[in-house]
Amino acid sequence: SCDACINSILFMLLISVLLLEWQKYTNFLFRSCRSIYVNNPHLESMKEDILYHFNLGTTSHDLQAQFGDVKFVCVGGSPWRMKSFIEYIAGELGLADPKAEYPNICEGTDRYAMYKVGPVLSVSHGMGIPSISIMLHELIKLLYHARCTDVTVVRIGTSGGIGLQPGTVVVTKQSVDSAFLPRFEQVVLGKPVVRSTELDEELAEELLQCGKELPEFQTVIGNTMCTLDFYEGQARLDGAFCSYTEEDKQNYLAEAYAAGVRNIEMESSVFAAMCKLSNLRAAVVCVTLLDRQKGDQLTSSHDVMHSYQQRPQLLVGHYIKKKLNWGK
Amino acid sequence: SCDACINSILFMLLISVLLLEWQKYTNFLFRSCRSIYVNNPHLESMKEDILYHFNLGTTSHDLQAQFGDVKFVCVGGSPWRMKSFIEYIAGELGLADPKAEYPNICEGTDRYAMYKVGPVLSVSHGMGIPSISIMLHELIKLLYHARCTDVTVVRIGTSGGIGLQPGTVVVTKQSVDSAFLPRFEQVVLGKPVVRSTELDEELAEELLQCGKELPEFQTVIGNTMCTLDFYEGQARLDGAFCSYTEEDKQNYLAEAYAAGVRNIEMESSVFAAMCKLSNLRAAVVCVTLLDRQKGDQLTSSHDVMHSYQQRPQLLVGHYIKKKLNWGK
Repeated sequence: SCDACINSILFMLLISVLLLEWQKYTNFLFRSCRSIYVNNPHLESMKEDILYHFNLGTTSHDLQAQFGDVKFVCVGGSPWRMKSFIEYIAGELGLADPKAEYPNICEGTDRYAMYKVGPVLSVSHGMGIPSISIMLHELIKLLYHARCTDVTVVRIGTSGGIGLQPGTVVVTKQSVDSAFLPRFEQVVLGKPVVRSTELDEELAEELLQCGKELPEFQTVIGNTMCTLDFYEGQARLDGAFCSYTEEDKQNYLAEAYAAGVRNIEMESSVFAAMCKLSNLRAAVVCVTLLDRQKGDQLTSSHDVMHSYQQRPQLLVGHYIKKKLNWGK
Repeated sequence: SCDACINSILFMLLISVLLLEWQKYTNFLFRSCRSIYVNNPHLESMKEDILYHFNLGTTSHDLQAQFGDVKFVCVGGSPWRMKSFIEYIAGELGLADPKAEYPNICEGTDRYAMYKVGPVLSVSHGMGIPSISIMLHELIKLLYHARCTDVTVVRIGTSGGIGLQPGTVVVTKQSVDSAFLPRFEQVVLGKPVVRSTELDEELAEELLQCGKELPEFQTVIGNTMCTLDFYEGQARLDGAFCSYTEEDKQNYLAEAYAAGVRNIEMESSVFAAMCKLSNLRAAVVCVTLLDRQKGDQLTSSHDVMHSYQQRPQLLVGHYIKKKLNWGK
């Protein structure tokens, strides 16, 4: 009969809705248990693991007690900026203690600086691929030893823009090399191994959305070129050496723009590759300090530079707040 | 007659001695006027040159007044170590002022630290090729703007040794890449350019001699391998990722040893290449913190590490003192 038919349809609809909800729930469960992989069988047989450049270790520190609750890690080149980020995020999350000093967790070394408030860890990484790579090896082992799960890592940095108003924030779609390809070459035992620099697409979209909710500055999504050098590697005309012309420079930047590159920095490729290998959700959010098509030198005033550098912090702070409130 | 003959011989001998002395004198003159080259025609047309990562500039600072007397530049990764070096050398040269605080010349930025006492400049460079390369571009321009002449640059650093007692100091003969070749590949406008990593042989010999005059520790000369990574790039088994065995590691280190490599670090190749391009006499003096054939982790006590790290300082301090006394 017609009634039986309608009932069947309603029942099937109900089942479909329930299945969809179940899928969301299991996705959530899977997400919240996403663990960090170290891909190294040798670690299991080590009695102690010294994270030398952090001045931390598995014997000297109870890493699980100290870091087990970490859900967000923000990394950036400058130690001062990473300290200012932890002060900012503490205020935003209502975790600020007026008397708190936010001690540097790596105070026994001057290689990196590390700060923590609640579920947020803030770590400096210096400049360039090798410097951030040492930090990431030890950060990944730290999160692994601390049995952290469901961790999101965001690099908040500075960069040179191409065809963008200075001060624009770029969320990285793909990190590309100097030939505009999304790959990172790692030398292992003297031989090159090519790794993917794929980032989390969903996270990039969420961060772009957060940027759009902050009207004080512009946020765009685009490719980020990662170089091994600030001067010749980025076609600057103002280094100690320069063997090319202004026209050569403009042609190279135009090629980069045509390949979707909107900014240039020096850490994103190895950051993307290592986070992918260790199952960390990762994103890169950099402000552009100048438009490279118009110049090479950083001539803006200290105050203007300072306000530009705060923009990735504001964006990522907004994202973290949203995520934590959503979980409540 | 026989007398005339003897007189002729004596006269010729006198002329020869005078010629040799003249040659020494002109060599000395040439040396003391050896200038620093920037190979960049664009710099001449710039009204101002901002050395962004030093927070210095040609308009904001009188670079010639501040740095014109520099004859020795020592560079090293750690800002703390470079501060301790300036305190040490000030004492050695009798230039120490008990009330002096040795202010950080780059105090407006946290990218690098810089200290000066008399003719000695001490600059930190962070970790890895890109980080030291930014510093060297700006250092070379600084020395050029300050019209410095006859400058010697020495990197004093730490490294992993191969087949050496930990604490041994290695003066670099050749800086080689991960295939043990004396070359540095610089990407310019997306294309690789190969540069020589030749260092000053005479300077290396002089530094080796200084090392031999200090009986507290061993100094050797050997090749130094420069890598882009501390873990996989140096065949360590204790990083977040490791896809090879202990045997693979030992084979790679044995190959390196056979190619004359005695230590491994992360800055010497670009340091050698850039100093050569700019006509700077350059040397690399690194202490080995461990023997990589016996392990990967840095397990020595803080005090032992600290005393090892002072050894390149002692050696280079001894060299600078000798050079300055010889000039008097």
